[in-house]
Amino acid sequence: MLKEQLIECHQRIKPYIHNTPILTSRSINEITGSELYFKCENFQKIGAFKMRGATNAILQLSEEQRGRGVVTHSSGNFAQALALAAKSLGVKAFIVMPSTAPQVKKDAVAGYGGIIIESEPTFLARENTAKQVEQNEGATYVDSSNDINVVKGHATACKELLENQSNLEYVFAPVGGGALISGTALAAYCFGNNCKVIGGEPFEVDDAYRSLQSGKIESNSTTNTIADGLKTELGDITFPILQKYVDRIIRVTEEETVIAMRLIWERMKLVVEPSAAVALAALLKQKQLFKNKKIGIILSGGNLDLNKLPF
Amino acid sequence: MLKEQLIECHQRIKPYIHNTPILTSRSINEITGSELYFKCENFQKIGAFKMRGATNAILQLSEEQRGRGVVTHSSGNFAQALALAAKSLGVKAFIVMPSTAPQVKKDAVAGYGGIIIESEPTFLARENTAKQVEQNEGATYVDSSNDINVVKGHATACKELLENQSNLEYVFAPVGGGALISGTALAAYCFGNNCKVIGGEPFEVDDAYRSLQSGKIESNSTTNTIADGLKTELGDITFPILQKYVDRIIRVTEEETVIAMRLIWERMKLVVEPSAAVALAALLKQKQLFKNKKIGIILSGGNLDLNKLPF
Repeated sequence: MLKEQLIECHQRIKPYIHNTPILTSRSINEITGSELYFKCENFQKIGAFKMRGATNAILQLSEEQRGRGVVTHSSGNFAQALALAAKSLGVKAFIVMPSTAPQVKKDAVAGYGGIIIESEPTFLARENTAKQVEQNEGATYVDSSNDINVVKGHATACKELLENQSNLEYVFAPVGGGALISGTALAAYCFGNNCKVIGGEPFEVDDAYRSLQSGKIESNSTTNTIADGLKTELGDITFPILQKYVDRIIRVTEEETVIAMRLIWERMKLVVEPSAAVALAALLKQKQLFKNKKIGIILSGGNLDLNKLPF
Repeated sequence: MLKEQLIECHQRIKPYIHNTPILTSRSINEITGSELYFKCENFQKIGAFKMRGATNAILQLSEEQRGRGVVTHSSGNFAQALALAAKSLGVKAFIVMPSTAPQVKKDAVAGYGGIIIESEPTFLARENTAKQVEQNEGATYVDSSNDINVVKGHATACKELLENQSNLEYVFAPVGGGALISGTALAAYCFGNNCKVIGGEPFEVDDAYRSLQSGKIESNSTTNTIADGLKTELGDITFPILQKYVDRIIRVTEEETVIAMRLIWERMKLVVEPSAAVALAALLKQKQLFKNKKIGIILSGGNLDLNKLPF
């Protein structure tokens, strides 16, 4: 049932997304002692996997809903993803962005045809502004992670990875709002051959790790991480999927993330954002446990400010 | 005859090199107004196309010559390429490096099994040291660019590009010592369909541009360019090939190189070195001449110090 749903989802979004390349690195294999397959979602449209879920969410709307548009609040990759997915499908996208968001991010969203609505930079203000747009425009709210259609869309990255490498024993993905790791875990469950999914999460925003420990959704009181895509927290849709399908979460320090990021840039010649490097950082941290294993790594995205690199 | 030689060369080196991916970028196409195919030699072994020519040069030696090893002087990508190519083929490689070369470069050469011989940092001292190694060890000298077997090896990058995209109207490549652009031009002549080859060269080291103007090999009195792979000059083997087969050279400023490099990093998520960006910079500079053309771009390599980025 779930398997069929993911197959249908993949069919549905295929015309609008890239089947991104899977790359390998002999030198990183030597460092980890395992056999790694990197799914390069930094090459995805808008430079991140979020294009997958955003596209699926819009395609699941009725004609009438599409006619009234979609709305989300995000200052990150999901803002661009929803804007471009909507544009590709002839749908209006209202993107609530904090007034403090960098101009370059606003320009990117506007460049993809998104209609930017500014709000005060608090979470509550952003949520309220989005609700107003829902009411005023009749637009459908699409959450950047706590939405089952977004989760299923994101699952297609791991599905493609397993279609290419069917005998992966593990897949590592970063954990932010939980939609990517949830989708990855669902795909591994449906299409893998006893393939376990492991999350990487920064200590500085380890809400998902703590949530799995305590059995309830935990929050972060601070978000001092370079992995700015991972500052969001789990929701009532993603959390139960993590509980049921994710093997475990490995936490990493900021320094470990930067080391992993540098390794990917230097050895693989790929521009990846810090959030993407967290998955490899998690593997590097416990590499002795994964010797000789065949492992997939979801490189989630490559959007970052080249003027603010950590090296 | 030449065509058969290049086909044989490609067969010879295939087991030791990567057939690197060819990537496209919708957003860079929009900027240039043309249809671009980027040959990603930054994904080549050792991170640069030089692996091709180095491998071919060693494979063309007799058994006896191979037994005595090879020697070159280089502090750049060719040093690593010759070291790794030699290692793959069970041949000793003596690499003459200036005593002032960064430790990271020495480590890379040593990591590939190269035997490092230090010399004073002048060109003359490096040449003399290499000659001593030739005499003492009986090793065969392999020049980093002015060697027809190196040129033919490098030609295989453009050959692969044309096998994938047979109707390219132009191929752009950077110009340093001239081996890459020579090989590219030979491959375009043999395997292209009236495909012209255009070089990109920094104004700061425009010896090749001036050589084509004057009809004799010109030198650079200074080499103040960020494109450190392009500081070398033409030789008596590469220059006549440029004269006969290269359509023209377009010169670019340092700033234009950095803009092109940033575009490749941001839009394509690829780590490329400044020298590689010079080819795209040349196209950007005269993009109005190439509207709607189908163009190959050789992204020559991705080796650079992440601590010294120009942005």
